[in-house]
Amino acid sequence: MRIDLNSDLGEGFGRWELGDDDALLSVVTSANVACGFHAGDPTVLRRTCAEAARRGVAIGAHTGYRDLAGFGRRFVDVPRAELTNDVLYQLGAIRQFAELAGSRVAYIKPHGALYNAIVHHEEQARAVVDAVTAFDPGLPVLGLPGSAWLRLAEEAGLPVVHEVFADRAYTPEGTLVPRRDPGAVLHDPREVAERCVRMATKGEIVAIDGSVITVKAASICVHGDTPGAVKIARTVRDALEEAGVALAPFTATTV
Amino acid sequence: MRIDLNSDLGEGFGRWELGDDDALLSVVTSANVACGFHAGDPTVLRRTCAEAARRGVAIGAHTGYRDLAGFGRRFVDVPRAELTNDVLYQLGAIRQFAELAGSRVAYIKPHGALYNAIVHHEEQARAVVDAVTAFDPGLPVLGLPGSAWLRLAEEAGLPVVHEVFADRAYTPEGTLVPRRDPGAVLHDPREVAERCVRMATKGEIVAIDGSVITVKAASICVHGDTPGAVKIARTVRDALEEAGVALAPFTATTV
Amino acid sequence: MRIDLNSDLGEGFGRWELGDDDALLSVVTSANVACGFHAGDPTVLRRTCAEAARRGVAIGAHTGYRDLAGFGRRFVDVPRAELTNDVLYQLGAIRQFAELAGSRVAYIKPHGALYNAIVHHEEQARAVVDAVTAFDPGLPVLGLPGSAWLRLAEEAGLPVVHEVFADRAYTPEGTLVPRRDPGAVLHDPREVAERCVRMATKGEIVAIDGSVITVKAASICVHGDTPGAVKIARTVRDALEEAGVALAPFTATTV
Amino acid sequence: MRIDLNSDLGEGFGRWELGDDDALLSVVTSANVACGFHAGDPTVLRRTCAEAARRGVAIGAHTGYRDLAGFGRRFVDVPRAELTNDVLYQLGAIRQFAELAGSRVAYIKPHGALYNAIVHHEEQARAVVDAVTAFDPGLPVLGLPGSAWLRLAEEAGLPVVHEVFADRAYTPEGTLVPRRDPGAVLHDPREVAERCVRMATKGEIVAIDGSVITVKAASICVHGDTPGAVKIARTVRDALEEAGVALAPFTATTV
Repeated sequence: MRIDLNSDLGEGFGRWELGDDDALLSVVTSANVACGFHAGDPTVLRRTCAEAARRGVAIGAHTGYRDLAGFGRRFVDVPRAELTNDVLYQLGAIRQFAELAGSRVAYIKPHGALYNAIVHHEEQARAVVDAVTAFDPGLPVLGLPGSAWLRLAEEAGLPVVHEVFADRAYTPEGTLVPRRDPGAVLHDPREVAERCVRMATKGEIVAIDGSVITVKAASICVHGDTPGAVKIARTVRDALEEAGVALAPFTATTV
Repeated sequence: MRIDLNSDLGEGFGRWELGDDDALLSVVTSANVACGFHAGDPTVLRRTCAEAARRGVAIGAHTGYRDLAGFGRRFVDVPRAELTNDVLYQLGAIRQFAELAGSRVAYIKPHGALYNAIVHHEEQARAVVDAVTAFDPGLPVLGLPGSAWLRLAEEAGLPVVHEVFADRAYTPEGTLVPRRDPGAVLHDPREVAERCVRMATKGEIVAIDGSVITVKAASICVHGDTPGAVKIARTVRDALEEAGVALAPFTATTV
Repeated sequence: MRIDLNSDLGEGFGRWELGDDDALLSVVTSANVACGFHAGDPTVLRRTCAEAARRGVAIGAHTGYRDLAGFGRRFVDVPRAELTNDVLYQLGAIRQFAELAGSRVAYIKPHGALYNAIVHHEEQARAVVDAVTAFDPGLPVLGLPGSAWLRLAEEAGLPVVHEVFADRAYTPEGTLVPRRDPGAVLHDPREVAERCVRMATKGEIVAIDGSVITVKAASICVHGDTPGAVKIARTVRDALEEAGVALAPFTATTV
Repeated sequence: MRIDLNSDLGEGFGRWELGDDDALLSVVTSANVACGFHAGDPTVLRRTCAEAARRGVAIGAHTGYRDLAGFGRRFVDVPRAELTNDVLYQLGAIRQFAELAGSRVAYIKPHGALYNAIVHHEEQARAVVDAVTAFDPGLPVLGLPGSAWLRLAEEAGLPVVHEVFADRAYTPEGTLVPRRDPGAVLHDPREVAERCVRMATKGEIVAIDGSVITVKAASICVHGDTPGAVKIARTVRDALEEAGVALAPFTATTV
């Protein structure tokens, strides 16, 4: 039994810091590193890639909309070709810093509103698939099972990796309970950790109605910038290790 | 006898266009392509690299300060490490589009105020040298003879390429006559072309006081966004070809 | 009989120019001046306001999304309160330059994707109405008849002004023919001018199916940055004057 | 005896927060509010102005270079006319939110590298003076005694207000000890508070060599974003009140 833990990192910009990257990098096995469009200036990028590499944490390209003011959390109706090029630009930039750190871009996971958009928005999903295919047709893509993004990536021959969210409630259909609904986000570290262990060891999640659903995910996403984020992440990791689950970045073979 | 002709290209941004890239790409042999910090969004970058590659024009990284509002023409007092990372970020981005076009980043030539700053500003010059060394210690750097930038690049073992300016007057000491001085910029296409031929064939320039100075440059810079830019560039190229000078990108061996 | 002619102006940014503002300011009676979020840096803003004031052209706040890379032409899903504040910020900035020029902000007309969004998007329409109400509850709002934006503005007690588009085809229902449909945009200056005269003198437009629809608009929008824009605008103005229609900015009394 | 306490506030941007504005606003009497160019998006601006107004804290325009990535802390060689317009734009924007909060822009204090530049840089100092004069020739300017900025402001007839820095060491000549020198910044809240009391009650500061210099300042600047900032500010305020010094915004009459 093995599982990957991923989290968003490197989301500072200039004078502004966000989250406790050092602490998180001691917990996760994959870092979704901001590439400069929604967060992450070149100096933050370099430092984050270097530190991830030093600790053996896999570097993922956390590409977003060009929207610093909105932190990439607002949908932007970018035409397909432009979006492809925006993603390629970010991939080229992070590749530079990953390689400089002696590592490499191990996967891509879009950020925020772009992540949400390409669950359904076929044109933007295709745009990101086009970018990844042009960048490296062997680059794993990390995302939500059932999303347009993963379906199109799979059709394009890209390696597809599923993730679950440690602290989010699921519907009986296996989709995320919308954030605005009661109970959508779990806050108790122990409860979150127990869910992660069950998911990793049995491939099961208890849905919000109490039913048990089956999931198969190679990675668990823990949040990095919420209050208590580090504590939750640490509790999850400890519980997984105690349960005998090996923590390691996903790879082509483990997916 | 052979010489390279370089010019700034890909300086549009979003809705805004600048210069006639198509016309210039049919004249020059090296394109200094804006990398997104002072001009050149990802879509412009992709198009410019693709078109340069299609025509056999060498792609140079035209890295600048992060200053769209000032078009990179205002000195910014960026600390050394930050500047290194800003340049690396741009290099990574343009490399992506150069390789996608089946070409590569053939050299670096900083833009505008950064170009001017590193003639004298040792710290920023070192910052750019650090970036190039980290990116590719074999990457040729194109610049002004006598600049701190080229001196430090040479000390760092980088291949150094000298350029002259087709339409600028020179002092008897071989430096550029400041733009604010009378006669600093030449506007007559024929006169500019004749100077270029003499420079390419005899390694001579007539300075502003009438004396003749000796120069050795592998590349001539023609401007891209001034009125009459294309006409001057075309006249220069035609005159050089008529004089039997081969037009080709500079290479490690020709430098 | 009198009518207002409005056009987008001041859409340069830094080194980049767009359209022929000088020529357009000699034709139109109202200038939709970009406020810095999608185009128009402070120096462009100042120059445009000064020149409009000098010629007696009314200054309108052409507020847009914060999106220089997209020129404000991409929908951005900005939450209501943020959008209100973004519009207020732009209103404050342009007011500064309008007053410095001895003029004032005479109206607001949102730009590009924001203009289009608030035809239907109630939340963003309310956001803009909130901003205008906070800025000046007597400020006229210029827009498309039938839009959510004008309906909500009217409910909030703001003076509402209707505009028609000089070069766009209309459906029999009085809405614009989508740009992607054949015949959506008219290019012949004479045809455009004739339609404007009929609209201004009889309040009629021939729809795309040949039927005649009735419109009542105080302003005609002519485009500023398309090829032939100035020629079309000039032809429209000459034809209106020849037909005895007075050209003047709309005012509270003429609306 | 009375004195003003000023501090930088409203320096968040989008997702990023900085400093504890709520705590500081309960201590200071004047808030230097970022205007969006180096920090402070429209929503932050609105919230900060509203909260300052609610507490009777004076609102100052904390105008900076257009440099979010550098937080306005890097000198930018902006030409005079452009800088004037950049400052005017910011003044117009903050005026909007100050007035909306039922308050007004009470003074201007440039930020960071601009503050430092105009101590000596005559052209940029003139640029800011031009902006203030155009905005409101009665607007007080807050700055460092002996700076080009205050001298030129005075010559232009602007009300000039001197400030001292609570936690900075002074030379016997009354200038600030450069930050890189040992002892340049004081960290002990009690020591800082005692210096402030002596300054406010006797107009004296003990310089770094032990000599006593005479100062006359209407405002004391306390830092807002350093570790322990709020504690130092609170200690200073308590000590001043205990010493019988009234805390209040400076006004035209108190200057």
